[in-house]
Amino acid sequence: MEAHKQLTIGLFGFGVVGEGVYKVLQQTPSLKASIKKVCIKNPEKKRDASQELFTADKNDLLSDPDINVIIEVINDSEAAFEIVSTALSNGKSVVSASKKMIAEYLPELLELQKQTGESLLYESAACASIPVIRNLEEYYDNDLLYSIRAIVNGSTNFILTKMFEEKLEFQEALLLAQQLGFAESDPKLDVEGFDAVNKWTFLLTHAYGIIERPENIVFNGIQNIQSADAAVSKEKNFDIKLVAQAKKLQNGKVAAFVLPQFVKLDGHLAFVKNEYNGVVIESSFADKQFFYGKGAGSFPTASAILSDLSALRYQYKYEYKKLYHHTPHQLTNDFHVKVYVSFDDWKYIPREKFEWIDEWHAGSARKYLVGGIHFNELKQNTWWKDNNTSLILLPEAVVEDMEIRKLKKKSLELAGIV
Amino acid sequence: MEAHKQLTIGLFGFGVVGEGVYKVLQQTPSLKASIKKVCIKNPEKKRDASQELFTADKNDLLSDPDINVIIEVINDSEAAFEIVSTALSNGKSVVSASKKMIAEYLPELLELQKQTGESLLYESAACASIPVIRNLEEYYDNDLLYSIRAIVNGSTNFILTKMFEEKLEFQEALLLAQQLGFAESDPKLDVEGFDAVNKWTFLLTHAYGIIERPENIVFNGIQNIQSADAAVSKEKNFDIKLVAQAKKLQNGKVAAFVLPQFVKLDGHLAFVKNEYNGVVIESSFADKQFFYGKGAGSFPTASAILSDLSALRYQYKYEYKKLYHHTPHQLTNDFHVKVYVSFDDWKYIPREKFEWIDEWHAGSARKYLVGGIHFNELKQNTWWKDNNTSLILLPEAVVEDMEIRKLKKKSLELAGIV
Repeated sequence: MEAHKQLTIGLFGFGVVGEGVYKVLQQTPSLKASIKKVCIKNPEKKRDASQELFTADKNDLLSDPDINVIIEVINDSEAAFEIVSTALSNGKSVVSASKKMIAEYLPELLELQKQTGESLLYESAACASIPVIRNLEEYYDNDLLYSIRAIVNGSTNFILTKMFEEKLEFQEALLLAQQLGFAESDPKLDVEGFDAVNKWTFLLTHAYGIIERPENIVFNGIQNIQSADAAVSKEKNFDIKLVAQAKKLQNGKVAAFVLPQFVKLDGHLAFVKNEYNGVVIESSFADKQFFYGKGAGSFPTASAILSDLSALRYQYKYEYKKLYHHTPHQLTNDFHVKVYVSFDDWKYIPREKFEWIDEWHAGSARKYLVGGIHFNELKQNTWWKDNNTSLILLPEAVVEDMEIRKLKKKSLELAGIV
Repeated sequence: MEAHKQLTIGLFGFGVVGEGVYKVLQQTPSLKASIKKVCIKNPEKKRDASQELFTADKNDLLSDPDINVIIEVINDSEAAFEIVSTALSNGKSVVSASKKMIAEYLPELLELQKQTGESLLYESAACASIPVIRNLEEYYDNDLLYSIRAIVNGSTNFILTKMFEEKLEFQEALLLAQQLGFAESDPKLDVEGFDAVNKWTFLLTHAYGIIERPENIVFNGIQNIQSADAAVSKEKNFDIKLVAQAKKLQNGKVAAFVLPQFVKLDGHLAFVKNEYNGVVIESSFADKQFFYGKGAGSFPTASAILSDLSALRYQYKYEYKKLYHHTPHQLTNDFHVKVYVSFDDWKYIPREKFEWIDEWHAGSARKYLVGGIHFNELKQNTWWKDNNTSLILLPEAVVEDMEIRKLKKKSLELAGIV
């Protein structure tokens, strides 16, 4: 309609996502954004675009005064940070899809945005086609966000869906995911929860103003989940999902982690199947919101990058309201969680660490118990993910102090003591 | 962080929504938006806010140069248009929740935005806490949106849910909705589909650049749906929802309507129960997105208004990209739909108007048939909603020309002719 910022783009990376961005922009002339140059590692490689678009010299993009937006979609997080920080310092806006880089360099990136006044947007870095960051920025104010629960990794969700619906073992489901292109050939990043906790790191910043290193957030993947766990889950009328969650406690602090969890079959997260992602936000005003969409892949990621470009045209910046306009929330480990733990041998399980036990079951092969444990125990030790042990949270897993006495009593009743 | 537009607000209306806005703003100091004056009809009425805030003279708001944003949440659509057009002409931004006014005065409002260059935002007017307009504006480009299907009216969805889950008759479910505050004492606007088609009118503008008068869009409500229809639906493993939908046809034109529809039990829209709203968008890039949230009520509406205020701080305007940056799509009635029609007497049903019939059933009381009909028949006649007749679309209801021959053949086979 009128004087928008004209976008002249330098693109770093021309892999699946980079090429997706290129194609999507070609099909979106209304955005009036043009890619001037693409920086890639190997300029010799044959590509589905004009050869003169490409360069191997990053300064052809970073030092070009015509280029006012850098899109960065490369895999190497150190190199990505180098590019993003130089671009911001050179007065360019940046759109990034590098979740690992953003998670690892979050404090530096916040400082750079402050210093330069330039905009860094990364809607595509978490849940791609779901506008979760924009929504957290625009819809929620600090005091009002009760909880956020999300499935942020499509590969693990695909594997879990197949384990449930087709009764596959983990390894079979993983192989299928790889064949269909939903999991990398080295699946560790996805399967062991690293990708999910990276995304959760900066979503916690937008949700609660929390700045934490990813390795300080308690997380696990789905690598130890077995078909026996899926069978128990079915008996209990639950599904199993890898859930990233954060909940504001009564003391104002925030409990946050990324762990496998039983979810109710008729609930929002159980509805999210296969490679899809989903986010459930509960708050005082908007009540309950649920977003569902593809979290990865060439075009879904490109469409999120497109929405960031669209926002740059009217000088949109993340405000990090919960960080700068409020007293940011603190992460706490001082609460209890209700867990299911399955294992091969009792010797791996420090039963004395449990505050209460609601159920135990010893089958011929696999054994399990259900009980309550202090979250610090998970933070400080790893027995719960070593030795083929599988820990799965129960629904409504977080237990605040005042509820514990009741549960302890229940445990004693179960044991026949009172 | 830095120089944002400071918002000084004049608020029209202090009913359920207006008071919600007032309270939500009080609890959101970080927005730095303050209400300077509230215009109400009856200044004598005792209210839960300082008396000097209120006035009955609209010019106290519209002519105050300090006030740069008007929020309008009144019920009378003519008065609302008067307020909004004066505010825009006086150089103020406007946030409105008046779906009826926006639907009825859409061409005028578009013209006013062009002339004045001022921003008019109305995220709260459709699906409240679901950011559907912003999403259509930012995520989708014209050529890429295949379809959009939505439950945009919470009252009717609540009634249908109760008819299904608790086997209530329509009138009983309506009474329950009224008792719980989900339906107005005069429920005609909701129940007969007027509210839904109003919302659909301007969502079609953001989705496809279509400008149409609400009365020119084929719509119906749920007033004729009976427990017998719910029973048939259960047999067929469907749920019934009032679905607003639009689909791009192969000829580039758009089929759009608001009608009751059978939906699959495991689908997205069946997941939307009680007073919730939901939107499913299918497109080439983002693939499938699904948004779910409360579509009405004091705080959900206020939270959407808050997100508009937040956007006004960085001078956000709707661009109406599909209207101004593309050749807008045209609405068409030239396609067929697969329908279920239930009725008391064959005499009300012009069987000769059906292109094909797949199923008929004559019970002692209620009868029904399933078949295909040209959409123009629904556009030009009303037999399908008169005389207690209930028309419900089948899933995937829209049939484009090329598929018809196949279906006609099936119909003939069923009749034993070929």
